[in-house]
Amino acid sequence: MAQLARRPFPEAEYQDRLRETQHRMEERGLDVLLVTDPANMYYLSGYDAYSFYVPQILIVTPDQQQPVWVGREQDLTCAVETTWLDRENIVLYSDDYVDSELHPMQLVADMVTDWGEASKTIGVEMDAYYLSARAYHELRNALPDATLEDTTKLVNEVRMVKSDREVEYHRQAARISERAMEVGIETIEPGVRECDAAAAVHEALYAGTEETGGEYPAIPPLMPSGEGTGSPHLTWTADEYERGEPVILELAGVVNRYHSPLTRTIFLGEPPEEARRASNVIVNGLDAALEAVEPGVTCEEVEMAWREEIAGTMVEKESRIGYSTGIGYPPSWVEKTASIRPGDETVLQPNMVFHMIPGVWFDDYGIEISESFLVTEDGAEVLADIPRELIVKE
Amino acid sequence: MAQLARRPFPEAEYQDRLRETQHRMEERGLDVLLVTDPANMYYLSGYDAYSFYVPQILIVTPDQQQPVWVGREQDLTCAVETTWLDRENIVLYSDDYVDSELHPMQLVADMVTDWGEASKTIGVEMDAYYLSARAYHELRNALPDATLEDTTKLVNEVRMVKSDREVEYHRQAARISERAMEVGIETIEPGVRECDAAAAVHEALYAGTEETGGEYPAIPPLMPSGEGTGSPHLTWTADEYERGEPVILELAGVVNRYHSPLTRTIFLGEPPEEARRASNVIVNGLDAALEAVEPGVTCEEVEMAWREEIAGTMVEKESRIGYSTGIGYPPSWVEKTASIRPGDETVLQPNMVFHMIPGVWFDDYGIEISESFLVTEDGAEVLADIPRELIVKE
Repeated sequence: MAQLARRPFPEAEYQDRLRETQHRMEERGLDVLLVTDPANMYYLSGYDAYSFYVPQILIVTPDQQQPVWVGREQDLTCAVETTWLDRENIVLYSDDYVDSELHPMQLVADMVTDWGEASKTIGVEMDAYYLSARAYHELRNALPDATLEDTTKLVNEVRMVKSDREVEYHRQAARISERAMEVGIETIEPGVRECDAAAAVHEALYAGTEETGGEYPAIPPLMPSGEGTGSPHLTWTADEYERGEPVILELAGVVNRYHSPLTRTIFLGEPPEEARRASNVIVNGLDAALEAVEPGVTCEEVEMAWREEIAGTMVEKESRIGYSTGIGYPPSWVEKTASIRPGDETVLQPNMVFHMIPGVWFDDYGIEISESFLVTEDGAEVLADIPRELIVKE
Repeated sequence: MAQLARRPFPEAEYQDRLRETQHRMEERGLDVLLVTDPANMYYLSGYDAYSFYVPQILIVTPDQQQPVWVGREQDLTCAVETTWLDRENIVLYSDDYVDSELHPMQLVADMVTDWGEASKTIGVEMDAYYLSARAYHELRNALPDATLEDTTKLVNEVRMVKSDREVEYHRQAARISERAMEVGIETIEPGVRECDAAAAVHEALYAGTEETGGEYPAIPPLMPSGEGTGSPHLTWTADEYERGEPVILELAGVVNRYHSPLTRTIFLGEPPEEARRASNVIVNGLDAALEAVEPGVTCEEVEMAWREEIAGTMVEKESRIGYSTGIGYPPSWVEKTASIRPGDETVLQPNMVFHMIPGVWFDDYGIEISESFLVTEDGAEVLADIPRELIVKE
């Protein structure tokens, strides 16, 4: 039988992450932290399965040696095999708690009460995916004396500066992004159905490289065409591509849940002059922003470099041209911490990873070109190596 | 340019859905309904884009001709092209509201206040995906005089009985499920990397059929192998399949967001005798449960037919062997209404669709075999046509 060796980090790395999280809890006076975002749960425990459609909660306290994972009975093996937790720190609920009047947050409240923490200060990720309003209310009702604090970004902020091992996974993911982009550029042709191009791009994303297989991304490839390029979040249809239309392809290779997003715009035939000019402005702006990246610079200063470069051109200023990225589960690979936009004073540090994705939209089409980059002592290391230009297919 | 004709239903069908929803609102005394579940939003408005990682809200009132969609500025074209709503019923917020102190629910509260509904009864999907605890609190704080009611299942329940057009999409999706399953059975072999099999299965899922292209499923193919088959929610690794191990393949073809899930277990080599016996029990139990399906029968009666069939065998009773299905977005294709389990008294009606997925787990592996079926006047119509048995590859 295939070995289940899905833990991509040594135990010591998980312990470092836990300690840093506990340190931040102490700074904020938190006695308990409830983690529900699947990306944060993966970061701290290693838990990795497509089971986040039912409630799952990781409980962190300041002095514990391991967090406690609470999930569904049938996901026990997932927890045993993918986490570094001892069996005693895996707590299960039965299917009676699924789509039911019973709710797993009631069990969490009981555990917190048993530990003598019922009237303490508890951090809850109020704006995380998969913490429903109901889950919050079940907790609130079961722990009326607790002080609940919003800790939506606490673990996300710990995740921002990557370890060298995490950086290596980003680089491996970028190899997959390159391959999938090359397949997309090759396959997208007049007369080809969009779904067949999507099939080829996915094949490349999952076959990965000889070194690493690919994983499902938090967002499927977005590949709007024609007028659809005005809508950055469309996927694909069963229509055939037509000569004369643009196609945007935004995708991300994924290794051990680390994403390296990449976007190019492909023109099927000779593009209008304004499309070429706009693409040049975007590329020049991207180049200028990447040039501005170095440790100690703030996110808004990087955005300013973009804005100054494009000033006076046809391209209008965007309010946000990028964001930090890393671990992702559906529906997003955005870390929700730093944004490359005016007012964001986050200071760049080595081993942060960002996706910078400016675009321009005309009345009936749009153009986007993006890069993921690593912050190094020497500036930005662009992760993927695909020509940074409007791709024109004659 | 490719035509954007992504509305798979005539306007009259959307109007019927809206009227039925408004009817149920009146029965419950609701003045406003806020819909955040992407599946419910798609059902009522047609909105279809991978943008649900930012807040989106569909506002329904009892007497309106169209609902109002509230979303991000850059998703305007998605809304214009995929919904049946007039431009005036599409309300946008700027990127200042994204990952920020500002929250779109504040705009929704302002609109509700302008309409004179600030102290009325408002339905909120408390347990829906993508309504965060924070979104709820922003609404609660901005409308202190409103009565908020939990309407998590209101639209889901309207969705349960499909129209003939929806049924047709389920059938088309089942053609894709069959094709992807055949590719999986063909590709999964000792020495093949799991990620390469995943690549081939995805290729089939998206290429679809000549008639229809395939779309991204709410859950990627789950394909645990070996000991991993004890964990139904694992996806795939980069390991090679080994002779002698089982592989579970659970997947769903998707057409216009309608899912037809299908599961088979593949044994690479001669299975242990207990695996063959367990598979026979599962198949007999599935047959018996499918035989019990007819309009007027309850979900728990269907489960009882399964339970009686497997009584006295090696297979233990499951608490839930199926659920209604239909439209899906990540993270789930479960409709969250009827479950095939003891205590569920939902009465089957023609044009309901269910996914029945019993399984059995031994110490170090598991077996699952599933079918999606339509309730018809004549009983269950099984949607996919793949041999209902343990697939043994010599």
